[in-house]
Amino acid sequence: MPEFLVLVPPDEARRLLLSHLPQPIADSEQVDVRSSLGRILAEDITAPHPLPDFQRSTVDGYAVRPGDTHGVSDSLPTYLSLIGEVPMGDAPDFEISPGQCALIHTGGMLPNGADAVVMLEYTQLAGADEIEIFRAVADGENVIRIGEDVAQGETVQASGSLIGPAEIGGLMALGITEVKAVRKVQVGLISTGDEVIEPARSPRPGQVRDVNSYTLGALVEKSGGVARLYGIVPDEFEGLKNTAARALSECDVVIITAGSSASTRDMTVDVIRSLGEPGVLVHGINTRPGKPTILGVCSGKAVIGLPGNPASALVNGYLFVVPVIEKLLGVLSKPKPTVPARLTVNLSSQAGREDWWPVRLIAETRTHGEATTRKPSGSQVGTATFLAEPIFGKSNLIFTLASADGLLRIDPDATGLSAGEIVEVLLL
Amino acid sequence: MPEFLVLVPPDEARRLLLSHLPQPIADSEQVDVRSSLGRILAEDITAPHPLPDFQRSTVDGYAVRPGDTHGVSDSLPTYLSLIGEVPMGDAPDFEISPGQCALIHTGGMLPNGADAVVMLEYTQLAGADEIEIFRAVADGENVIRIGEDVAQGETVQASGSLIGPAEIGGLMALGITEVKAVRKVQVGLISTGDEVIEPARSPRPGQVRDVNSYTLGALVEKSGGVARLYGIVPDEFEGLKNTAARALSECDVVIITAGSSASTRDMTVDVIRSLGEPGVLVHGINTRPGKPTILGVCSGKAVIGLPGNPASALVNGYLFVVPVIEKLLGVLSKPKPTVPARLTVNLSSQAGREDWWPVRLIAETRTHGEATTRKPSGSQVGTATFLAEPIFGKSNLIFTLASADGLLRIDPDATGLSAGEIVEVLLL
Repeated sequence: MPEFLVLVPPDEARRLLLSHLPQPIADSEQVDVRSSLGRILAEDITAPHPLPDFQRSTVDGYAVRPGDTHGVSDSLPTYLSLIGEVPMGDAPDFEISPGQCALIHTGGMLPNGADAVVMLEYTQLAGADEIEIFRAVADGENVIRIGEDVAQGETVQASGSLIGPAEIGGLMALGITEVKAVRKVQVGLISTGDEVIEPARSPRPGQVRDVNSYTLGALVEKSGGVARLYGIVPDEFEGLKNTAARALSECDVVIITAGSSASTRDMTVDVIRSLGEPGVLVHGINTRPGKPTILGVCSGKAVIGLPGNPASALVNGYLFVVPVIEKLLGVLSKPKPTVPARLTVNLSSQAGREDWWPVRLIAETRTHGEATTRKPSGSQVGTATFLAEPIFGKSNLIFTLASADGLLRIDPDATGLSAGEIVEVLLL
Repeated sequence: MPEFLVLVPPDEARRLLLSHLPQPIADSEQVDVRSSLGRILAEDITAPHPLPDFQRSTVDGYAVRPGDTHGVSDSLPTYLSLIGEVPMGDAPDFEISPGQCALIHTGGMLPNGADAVVMLEYTQLAGADEIEIFRAVADGENVIRIGEDVAQGETVQASGSLIGPAEIGGLMALGITEVKAVRKVQVGLISTGDEVIEPARSPRPGQVRDVNSYTLGALVEKSGGVARLYGIVPDEFEGLKNTAARALSECDVVIITAGSSASTRDMTVDVIRSLGEPGVLVHGINTRPGKPTILGVCSGKAVIGLPGNPASALVNGYLFVVPVIEKLLGVLSKPKPTVPARLTVNLSSQAGREDWWPVRLIAETRTHGEATTRKPSGSQVGTATFLAEPIFGKSNLIFTLASADGLLRIDPDATGLSAGEIVEVLLL
């Protein structure tokens, strides 16, 4: 009886669900760093050696003993004897005695005796083996000392970090070519509805193709999970219960997309109740779309019932399934990608309800007078600004989302947003 | 002679580079929609049939002839004869005559004769086969007509669209299980520097491990390209030229990360000049990091020289390599993911130069007095707000970026940003 649902605010619903889930899944696996993009570290990475592990020059110039440049200036230069050039990629086979210097390139290793580098532009060749120096340098100037970037034993990457391009580089810099990554979260997907058929089939009148297994499957993969499809189950309690129980035993999370009618949603509630304790935590969320979403936990695993409407199911996937996957992966708090945009129309909203509007982002063409109405701030990324144009579609079909670039949230406290307002759009 | 570089503003440099590249690469390949996540459509998708392709109910209720409810209200109900229930997933085998109705579920197919649905809550069972109706419905009320979501032949997804979860769903809804996707952009990566060695090796004094091949490789993969590694080439013109020529013949884009010294950067310039017309377009960009970046086009293909410093190379990869990949893929204008955050410190910047600061994002804990200082706007995504804390590191090592969540841009016109300012952080 969806009329009598007690609607829970979405943030509270999500907190409740996450609080019932155990700590991140413990299993990890060894992965090659070169193919670890997007994985989550399952161990703290400590530096096996300092970086740099030799004293390096940060400029092109001459390696010197700083004392030899004491008091030196444009008007009072000094002359040092050039004894060689530091080879790149090798330790110099000479050392710098008082009165001597050596040519060194950025990244080169300082010879023994030298402890600073004078930049090329403050020097001049004064003879075959003599360099005129116009500037004094302090101890360690233009030099990175051993361990100045990373000390030996320092934790350079924490367990729970998302491995991106920079993390891969950091690991490579330390010679770490394999790491422990959190096992991917297994998410079982079940579609229900007597009217739902496989996409490759041609629907008879009254039938529709399964969309949810594939949209949610893609969302799961995008979020660091593995989607396991359990197919389409007819609207029948025992059949759904058996499939859900099998999925629960084989996966970390189970998602059931209910058929569109109220009766199949009620059946999903009964199935979740039958699968284990505590069962259904939330039935009905004060959000649009997504009111009929069901959040449950059975024997420590999340079981989520999403609306049958594909657009609603996908939006609620972003709101409730992705956070579950991230919690199970142990992902450290992660900001959601957004983009600021100017709303093109007024949007009204029911107070107390959180609304999510699919919007199209249109690069704003700045013409004459308009250009100055909203000056991009100094911190704007790139020069483009965007218009956020809500997409209105009668039946909230999946194409509404397919043509959307992002979702615009209207706070439960708000009764709407005004045209011209700068809003943050969550990128899809 | 990097001292005499004419520094080009970064936006202008990028425009110049992109303007010399041809239209998107023409090659496409057939892909299974289920494994097309992240690919770019190489064809317009038109609907082979309308959606829905039968008249559907959007609510649970009774299918009626609207005329039978004319003038009906709470105080003046009407009674209709219940002749059956519409089965889900099938065409009803009855039709609605005047004075009749049928039970129908959300998503069910309207029987012939019926042209509207009265919601369950405005009805009541009045006898075994009799339904009391309390509300009038207009023609088509609570019904989606054939083709109302998508008309047959309508273009539902444009060539150049990024295929995400919603796009996969839209294709599945139409029974389209294979599409043409743009072939992935092949990016050849060459590292130079006599001091650079493979990451699996142990460096001798003076040597450092290759980081750039792997950070840039991961960035390329993340952006829809395929990274092809050409290894580490010693600082020697002929060797670098031969490797670059081979990469240019086998790839769509070539990236050379120069060693850290000025001489190897100059060699990269000479190599790009030797590979084809017009050669070097930009040598020196007014940005930090990235001043020594070289942008070239040889025989229609981008050849980019990036600084040897891994952090600089990666930031400039985001700024110059990703846009090249996106242009070659034909990606429609795509907003960059950002997140609003509050800057923790003052940052100064040289006027005329665009600065990119790696920042850590820290979820802001809202305590008593503070909480009200900046009220989140109604359009804030989620309730979390973030502090942006710049990461200062002496040698701009790759770990600076590895511990960063995003990059903060300081506009060339600005001389800095102030602590407390709300800034947009580009997510990495």
